[in-house]
Amino acid sequence: MSSERKFTHKQIDPTPYQILEIESYIKLAQEVKKKAYCPYSKFHVGCVLFDQDGNMHEGVNVENASYGLTICAERNAIISAVTKGMKSIRLIVINCKTEKVGSPCGACRQVIGEFSNEKTIVVLSNDNGLYEITDFESILPGAFGPKDLFGSPNC
Amino acid sequence: MSSERKFTHKQIDPTPYQILEIESYIKLAQEVKKKAYCPYSKFHVGCVLFDQDGNMHEGVNVENASYGLTICAERNAIISAVTKGMKSIRLIVINCKTEKVGSPCGACRQVIGEFSNEKTIVVLSNDNGLYEITDFESILPGAFGPKDLFGSPNC
Amino acid sequence: MSSERKFTHKQIDPTPYQILEIESYIKLAQEVKKKAYCPYSKFHVGCVLFDQDGNMHEGVNVENASYGLTICAERNAIISAVTKGMKSIRLIVINCKTEKVGSPCGACRQVIGEFSNEKTIVVLSNDNGLYEITDFESILPGAFGPKDLFGSPNC
Amino acid sequence: MSSERKFTHKQIDPTPYQILEIESYIKLAQEVKKKAYCPYSKFHVGCVLFDQDGNMHEGVNVENASYGLTICAERNAIISAVTKGMKSIRLIVINCKTEKVGSPCGACRQVIGEFSNEKTIVVLSNDNGLYEITDFESILPGAFGPKDLFGSPNC
Ligand SMILES: [Zn+2]
Ligand SMILES: [Zn+2]
Ligand SMILES: [Zn+2]
Ligand SMILES: [Zn+2]
Repeated sequence: MSSERKFTHKQIDPTPYQILEIESYIKLAQEVKKKAYCPYSKFHVGCVLFDQDGNMHEGVNVENASYGLTICAERNAIISAVTKGMKSIRLIVINCKTEKVGSPCGACRQVIGEFSNEKTIVVLSNDNGLYEITDFESILPGAFGPKDLFGSPNC
Repeated sequence: MSSERKFTHKQIDPTPYQILEIESYIKLAQEVKKKAYCPYSKFHVGCVLFDQDGNMHEGVNVENASYGLTICAERNAIISAVTKGMKSIRLIVINCKTEKVGSPCGACRQVIGEFSNEKTIVVLSNDNGLYEITDFESILPGAFGPKDLFGSPNC
Repeated sequence: MSSERKFTHKQIDPTPYQILEIESYIKLAQEVKKKAYCPYSKFHVGCVLFDQDGNMHEGVNVENASYGLTICAERNAIISAVTKGMKSIRLIVINCKTEKVGSPCGACRQVIGEFSNEKTIVVLSNDNGLYEITDFESILPGAFGPKDLFGSPNC
Repeated sequence: MSSERKFTHKQIDPTPYQILEIESYIKLAQEVKKKAYCPYSKFHVGCVLFDQDGNMHEGVNVENASYGLTICAERNAIISAVTKGMKSIRLIVINCKTEKVGSPCGACRQVIGEFSNEKTIVVLSNDNGLYEITDFESILPGAFGPKDLFGSPNC
């Protein structure tokens, strides 16, 4: 159903062909999700990302008995990608089994921001075909980033 | 200068009296900031919050040699407050020495969300009198929260 | 039962009077624990600490729907204490309802390390009167700390 | 120099052949380290791990402007490995440019613990040929782990 798709990216208006492509990545993220290590929450999340060179990277959530040392699928995909040469995110797709589209936690949004630019595409999806194509500024408005740190005089 | 103040809370339109009050809390957050433990970044942040009963709680950023175990002022204030009986945040004020208003990282926005409702007031401020009065939904739109977790079937 | 108490601090051998005192702090940590915010794990943890000036600070675990943004009782107590002027930990007591004594997660051990010295006393306890009096070096041997960071040439 | 090598694993006594192998992995970790994203600390860390099937996985530290959302090389390697099917760690090698051997932070030790058993080999190394072959119990004695969580009655 078209009503289940939202396009809220401020700069990108996907063509029908790009939409097909994005839907295939959602399927990949859904598949990746099976690898999640989530014995405490039983809440599986999968993530697929493409870097500046078009290379694909994947991530799942990895929980910990301490709870606080749990790391989400999105951050897993991003930091795995850095090891493999990722400099910036072209496209990142999140998938989980929520009722509304899968929504990254604030920590993941912050880490997405470290490697995003205004063209970065963020896709939030769930298992029922619902998804949203959005951008970083829309999910973390007025984010604190590298410039704020370097721009500020030491106090 | 009035141009330095933004009021973007979706439900609350502060009266002149409330504005005076909020400005006094910004001064408190600025004062609290001096207690920050930030030997690595030298970047001091202070936070003051008021809970459902009007009790005040404070927090500063506390860094760690590992970097990753650093905890921000906002989360410090919130978790300190929980120990003292805080159930929900009525008002939270962040202050730091950035050029634009101090902006909470995504992790802090997520933790603010755990204890917020639509009336919660979030104040972002810097040392030059610049500030913004906003709300949780404006800083973490479509947040992942407790309902998403409990509402989702185990996968 | 004396067999339920272990004294493994490398420098401190507590007197009977100090033992009585420590047991009273364990009771405080047990009391504090009731304030824990742990809707996801239902696992309550309490912490009491005394700083260089003998001032007492408290902490409980505060969980988050994201799991990964959960912060433990020990770190809560420490960062709350920093806001109130804590420079170093004299004594820190952890209490939870495990079968063996409550054991801090690695993240908390690391943060304890940032504010510890060889005299710092770490007390691990549970609800059945079992406890251990130990030190930082015993719980995080060969820790990575501030000196490692500053001592290393940038690479 | 043999004095620069320590063998403190409680169960494993490496043969000369295994030592040669381990030294080759240290070189790999040193190489991986170049991919670290560490604009804030300038402190590069590299990690190489082998899983239950002998598959190799790599990780570097990935910092964040927020400091607190920084993730270390060890955790990067581990969570990347989980996505690729890692169930338990056979060998993990950490390398950085400290004076003494590279030492994992407490958070990383905790996450190593989630996937370790008594045979897991932990190798701490630096750039000067100094290294230590140890085990999980030696770096996080009496760790809080999955058993503590499940074993404890909800309180
Ligand atoms: Zn997340
Ligand atoms: Zn923050
Ligand atoms: Zn902990
Ligand atoms: Zn670490």
